[in-house]
Amino acid sequence: MTLRVALLAAVALAGCATAQTPAPAPAPAAPRVPPAMQWLYGSGESGASSLQAYAAFLAYVIARAQTRPRESIVLAEGATLDDPRMIPCGERPLAVVLDADETAIQNLGYEYDEALSGRSYDQERWNRWERTGANAVLAMPGAAAALRSIRNHGVTVIFNSNRMAANAAQTRAALEGAGLGPAVHGETLYLQGDHGTGSAKDPRRAAISARYCVIAMAGDQLGDFSDLFNARTLSVPDRRRHATTPPFSALWGQGWFMLSNPVYGPSIRGSFDDVFPADKRWSDPQGGNR
Amino acid sequence: MTLRVALLAAVALAGCATAQTPAPAPAPAAPRVPPAMQWLYGSGESGASSLQAYAAFLAYVIARAQTRPRESIVLAEGATLDDPRMIPCGERPLAVVLDADETAIQNLGYEYDEALSGRSYDQERWNRWERTGANAVLAMPGAAAALRSIRNHGVTVIFNSNRMAANAAQTRAALEGAGLGPAVHGETLYLQGDHGTGSAKDPRRAAISARYCVIAMAGDQLGDFSDLFNARTLSVPDRRRHATTPPFSALWGQGWFMLSNPVYGPSIRGSFDDVFPADKRWSDPQGGNR
Repeated sequence: MTLRVALLAAVALAGCATAQTPAPAPAPAAPRVPPAMQWLYGSGESGASSLQAYAAFLAYVIARAQTRPRESIVLAEGATLDDPRMIPCGERPLAVVLDADETAIQNLGYEYDEALSGRSYDQERWNRWERTGANAVLAMPGAAAALRSIRNHGVTVIFNSNRMAANAAQTRAALEGAGLGPAVHGETLYLQGDHGTGSAKDPRRAAISARYCVIAMAGDQLGDFSDLFNARTLSVPDRRRHATTPPFSALWGQGWFMLSNPVYGPSIRGSFDDVFPADKRWSDPQGGNR
Repeated sequence: MTLRVALLAAVALAGCATAQTPAPAPAPAAPRVPPAMQWLYGSGESGASSLQAYAAFLAYVIARAQTRPRESIVLAEGATLDDPRMIPCGERPLAVVLDADETAIQNLGYEYDEALSGRSYDQERWNRWERTGANAVLAMPGAAAALRSIRNHGVTVIFNSNRMAANAAQTRAALEGAGLGPAVHGETLYLQGDHGTGSAKDPRRAAISARYCVIAMAGDQLGDFSDLFNARTLSVPDRRRHATTPPFSALWGQGWFMLSNPVYGPSIRGSFDDVFPADKRWSDPQGGNR
């Protein structure tokens, strides 16, 4: 952001440069780490939050595996946000499904480049990151130990990621290099292009559910749990309301596990009217706004 | 931030305005909600994260109250980050201790004003907010129901906040108005000025522990658990390391409960060197930085 400030000021100055005595170009402001990245990658607070989420995930999975459930926690075809129904488990073996990016791994290398360059997200650059960045990630705090213990309890760990199927080998290397594997494409690693189209994860969840009884899911975006939350007709406030009121409110920490990611994704949206309820606003009595 | 961009551009332009044909002043860019606020106050993801934390908090407190513990989860005097020891419980009644701001309540009104004005934190403005903003807050998702249930299990709920003791009546009104009370100053509400000096919370935790066996704490900053994490000598990476490795790593979700707040506080710190490990960096092979 600071880089953009400097650029904007430079552009503004350029408009009048010929009409003034040339001055030495100002040194560009040094880039700073955006606050959300400071929190997510640098703070003990976010590390604690991740450890806490994985502790709850692990405890839930162990308890659930002992009393084999009839129903999975994957929404069935035809379910809606107002009428959710879960896929039955049958006799299928138990599994957990989790997202990869900012759920299992921290994409430190990519975010470093984005913060330093001041660029915003770009699909092509992200694609290059998938292909060449496998060594510049770390596991999210608590993830590696929890997944290891879940496997030791006889439950299969499956990643459902929107990374591209074409880059499966490098994504496998990233996950396994971070101590989170095994992650075998088509078996324990489902990627964009495997089933259905685009970033929709429901078709992959359906394919996984045809082979497994999914007893828990983890992610950093609501789309890691159901594509219904990504409906274009859903306003920002309605999306929050659906996630935080019955029936879905009861699932958090009880089958669905959320990792906190304020850096990117569909969670980072909203105008003033979307984010701040009209009856919960305040103006400093000693200073007008703008 | 956008406001600052516009101001900077305007300042840059002002330097050459007399030498050019006067042009209509550009409309100031509309302020936007900062990403971390979009996440914390607007997203279903953060609502889910809060519900999940409070579900774990409640379940832990209920279980812990049934098997009365010998030790509290408050660090004893003389404890260090390398040698933590907890205050014994004796026969004192059970309590939980939690922070107020962005742990129990969402300060929507204050953050709305800050985002709209583009101003950064200011102690005097915050003080005015404490005195006049009690109606412009909401409970954090899950907090009101969890605190109600904790009290129904015979455990006292105590707030330990860095709001000022002089504003106790308004802070009580904020907490109780959000459905989180009772919050009675000196009994179930401890504030800055009550014990010790400044923002240190350890003296208040000691005073609470003289009357209660504290079985769980909740907060959005490490200082809500121990002032040791706020030592000035502690670097950003060391602070994260202490919070996420033994012995403290085992406390998250097991006595200490973290709410995710990427908007403000000591968790929002760090240079590139602090936040991004030197061996986890990446440069886009198709584009140099800056």
